[in-house]
Amino acid sequence: MIVRLTIEYDGTAYCGWQIQSNGLAVQQVLEEALAQVQGTPVRVTASGRTDAGVHARGLVVHFRTEKVLPLTAYRDGVNVHLPKDIAVQAVALAPDGFNALSSATGKWYRYTILQHSVRSPLAARNAWHIRSPLDLAAMQTAAGYFVGVHDFVRFRTTDCDAKTTRREVFAVEVVQRGELVTIDVRGAGFLRHMVRIMAGTLVAIGLGKRPAEDVRRLLAGEIGLRAGPNAPPQGLCLMEVYY
Amino acid sequence: MIVRLTIEYDGTAYCGWQIQSNGLAVQQVLEEALAQVQGTPVRVTASGRTDAGVHARGLVVHFRTEKVLPLTAYRDGVNVHLPKDIAVQAVALAPDGFNALSSATGKWYRYTILQHSVRSPLAARNAWHIRSPLDLAAMQTAAGYFVGVHDFVRFRTTDCDAKTTRREVFAVEVVQRGELVTIDVRGAGFLRHMVRIMAGTLVAIGLGKRPAEDVRRLLAGEIGLRAGPNAPPQGLCLMEVYY
Repeated sequence: MIVRLTIEYDGTAYCGWQIQSNGLAVQQVLEEALAQVQGTPVRVTASGRTDAGVHARGLVVHFRTEKVLPLTAYRDGVNVHLPKDIAVQAVALAPDGFNALSSATGKWYRYTILQHSVRSPLAARNAWHIRSPLDLAAMQTAAGYFVGVHDFVRFRTTDCDAKTTRREVFAVEVVQRGELVTIDVRGAGFLRHMVRIMAGTLVAIGLGKRPAEDVRRLLAGEIGLRAGPNAPPQGLCLMEVYY
Repeated sequence: MIVRLTIEYDGTAYCGWQIQSNGLAVQQVLEEALAQVQGTPVRVTASGRTDAGVHARGLVVHFRTEKVLPLTAYRDGVNVHLPKDIAVQAVALAPDGFNALSSATGKWYRYTILQHSVRSPLAARNAWHIRSPLDLAAMQTAAGYFVGVHDFVRFRTTDCDAKTTRREVFAVEVVQRGELVTIDVRGAGFLRHMVRIMAGTLVAIGLGKRPAEDVRRLLAGEIGLRAGPNAPPQGLCLMEVYY
């Protein structure tokens, strides 16, 4: 049987989703809690990784087991063994052949910016603080250029090992609510740091440091042009995985 | 000269506002940062205390000084010396006779509840998690009973040392937005734990454990009746102090 779990976490304290040698991973903490409930070691497959400090509302994982417990055990039972900053939000049996990674048809990420002259302690864990006003219209124009199938080779970190760099972005919405600006990015797939570099580029455009048109030129592969900075991790949240 | 500062903090890591022997206080951290900028020791007077784990968006403090620096030094300069979870939001010179504690004419507190079947890591630092549905209408009816001048003796902790227990509440609003329920309480003054016990009582009413009418009976001093539990600190935030 295949059990599918939806996981929420505050990534502040972790080295990211995936088990690594340099810190505590969300995956490790989840697998240990699952093993306590299941009574045997459990290894999960996730819809993808998140980097150190990045949050998730709806990361999806699956694992196979011969012995399926009552499903609430995988949510309420596992949550008892998880720390405050990780929780199983939903559990379901998945159809045969389901794979959290390869069955995913898309993902929704949200990047959150606090636009305010002073930093905010209550927003510090979940937003990138930008002191100067942002030109929303310019950011929205630039956001529109991302939509479609493009070569996102300029929008990945140097240690991204994906073999192909063409990706489809379904939609990019830039919305302001008071001091908070959110960038919602939905797409079929993403390169490593892609959303954070998109956000860093959009903020550079919002600050007037470069024209909206640069996104189109970057996607067209114009020589000598570099994308904006990698926006800091705490502003990023994996909202939902589509299947 | 009297300098007035507005302070925001995430209270999770602190033993509360006031300097105590059992942990690190927000006041201590702020005074040390101010001293670094001012070049001399600074002792501030606050609009009031907050308990361990309680947050603030707009706590107000004042201090006297012979040597006033350019005002931005007290905001941007001090913020450089403050940790991520504390920041000065605003600074102004106050008129002679201003006292952050005794000049205050009222305060606005917000208590936040997450009403959801599963706990939420991303809301854990700023909300009280309640699993069962809440009867908003009953809570709103009960909230209305708090408005006015009443004896709040049943709505304070046993170690509250206030000499009088009559307090004026201006308004109590209970609002639901998705899974979040907020209780906004505005009043002239508050006893120790008063807002948290009000919130705990309103939640007991929302859960159908007791009738809305109990608030009226508690305020009337009915013998043998006890208020609800003290709601946990992380849901509480001092939003604003009125002068």
